[in-house]
Amino acid sequence: MKKLLITGISGFVGGHMVDFLTRNRQDLEIHGISRSQPAWDFVPVRPELLTNHYFHRADLLEIPKIKKFLECVQPDYILHMAAQSSVAESWKTPVFSFMNNTNIFLNIIDTVRLNDNGARVLSIGSSEQYGVVSAQDLPLTEETPQHPANPYAVARVAQEQLATIYANGYGLDICCTRSFNHCGPGQTDRFVISAIVKQFVQIAHGLQDPVIHIGNGSIVRDFVDVHDVVAAYDLLLSKGRRGEVYNVCSGTGRTIREIITLLSDMTGIDAGVHQELAQIRPIDNPCIIGSSEKIRRELGWKPSVSFDQSLRSVYEYWDHRIRQEGAPGNN
Amino acid sequence: MKKLLITGISGFVGGHMVDFLTRNRQDLEIHGISRSQPAWDFVPVRPELLTNHYFHRADLLEIPKIKKFLECVQPDYILHMAAQSSVAESWKTPVFSFMNNTNIFLNIIDTVRLNDNGARVLSIGSSEQYGVVSAQDLPLTEETPQHPANPYAVARVAQEQLATIYANGYGLDICCTRSFNHCGPGQTDRFVISAIVKQFVQIAHGLQDPVIHIGNGSIVRDFVDVHDVVAAYDLLLSKGRRGEVYNVCSGTGRTIREIITLLSDMTGIDAGVHQELAQIRPIDNPCIIGSSEKIRRELGWKPSVSFDQSLRSVYEYWDHRIRQEGAPGNN
Repeated sequence: MKKLLITGISGFVGGHMVDFLTRNRQDLEIHGISRSQPAWDFVPVRPELLTNHYFHRADLLEIPKIKKFLECVQPDYILHMAAQSSVAESWKTPVFSFMNNTNIFLNIIDTVRLNDNGARVLSIGSSEQYGVVSAQDLPLTEETPQHPANPYAVARVAQEQLATIYANGYGLDICCTRSFNHCGPGQTDRFVISAIVKQFVQIAHGLQDPVIHIGNGSIVRDFVDVHDVVAAYDLLLSKGRRGEVYNVCSGTGRTIREIITLLSDMTGIDAGVHQELAQIRPIDNPCIIGSSEKIRRELGWKPSVSFDQSLRSVYEYWDHRIRQEGAPGNN
Repeated sequence: MKKLLITGISGFVGGHMVDFLTRNRQDLEIHGISRSQPAWDFVPVRPELLTNHYFHRADLLEIPKIKKFLECVQPDYILHMAAQSSVAESWKTPVFSFMNNTNIFLNIIDTVRLNDNGARVLSIGSSEQYGVVSAQDLPLTEETPQHPANPYAVARVAQEQLATIYANGYGLDICCTRSFNHCGPGQTDRFVISAIVKQFVQIAHGLQDPVIHIGNGSIVRDFVDVHDVVAAYDLLLSKGRRGEVYNVCSGTGRTIREIITLLSDMTGIDAGVHQELAQIRPIDNPCIIGSSEKIRRELGWKPSVSFDQSLRSVYEYWDHRIRQEGAPGNN
């Protein structure tokens, strides 16, 4: 039985990935690694009931521990999802963000190099790598030059460049994504769609005045549902070309204000919008829209969850939580 | 009296920088920081006899120590030269190389951000950032896209991108160089010119068979004398534009074999050449030649030491050492 190691398994995408794998890939023994034990409340799988699944607590900055772990498990595949993936957080704690993106990835791939067992690695990157782009660069293809414009984006560019060096210079079997904004149930409200939908749910439950608080409402982002993301990762792990980079995106751009209008229509809540200056970032990319042509052409992947369905599932997630917990704090 | 903090002061460029400053900038109080006390044998200055110069031992990976140090010294200028600057070493120990390039720089500038005293920072980068370029990209200007092709180069690109984020996003006063290959007395023989000249000197002293051992002899590099480098850094520290990047280069490309021919002519030694396969790197940039047009135009800098003079000074350095020590080991 082939072994798949998933870093950052306890997170939002980690939970959905395990849910996908338990339904579609019973041929894999799964080893998850994370700083904290998984406690997903947004997917049906319960980690403690899984067979052929092993969870290990470790900090990927601890090189000797990672080395021992990889020598012991000898994974055939590594899906590296561990990351400090919030742009806003990276402006607040840039050193922490950089170490928990670039350094943890470098620790993993250098351990793979020294371990030399031929493990295949999928490195998860970000659309933030493109940075501030001009209208004629849209949609962004994998060939578009990268101009990272925040600490998180710099860390992700460095990660991908290291992946390329390790693939071409040391011969490691590494493939990379540039994953665009995700949405789906279980994402923390540090991310924009989850934050907005949670507010609509709170308004519906009478827990908040009918005003949606946002950062910059005019930025355009390309959102892809987390279920489509994990299907793409599964495909890329087995069939993505070595040393190549693939956009994982929907190809559709939406402003934050458009999303609020969609949610107003969906919920019947006519909320005001308040732009919080404190949430405006020092530099922000006005528009990020990707081209998914490469992954469609080479691997036959395409998004299957509509944006409407996606928003509904996020709404149901927060609605369920608020019914259970009352007003939830930050999460 | 303004205070200048120099990181990596104990190194080759550090020694020449202090030599330059003691002769030209008596208006500065100099604080050097390094893992080891300076012990330069290639410049006339003796650290222990200097006034207004202070040396501090510290590892730039230790953030609390750096923080305390910067709060205490409150430098007006920071010349960040500390680096693990060998491409060959970066292939052998990529994690160490990355941490001792990108992470140490990030630790410094993030401490400056938190300290918030408006210190001006000069970040030293490398021509290696350009990576593998095509003939029509030559000479390389600051606008040429970067395609880093070794672990060291990736670390330097990340350093510069972080510098740009800190300048534009946090408003720090940072200016960057992309410094091309250096030569000059005191450089260790891990670097190509020093390695080759040392062998000529050893042959002249009968300590080596008349065969020069090299890596890839056909690569083209742009060498600039260390005396011109430190003059450029002094100018850039005071006059380089915030958030800008400047090439520091000669504008002339030379193959390694051409340099051997020059040294044969200079010394009268007709040596054979042996290309060591073990020294060939996984990926190597065939040709790196820079344009110094920007720094010439904006700051009036230009190289003043001829390549011939430079080679002679390196020859004299090794000749002096061998006369003093006999056959020197690796250095």
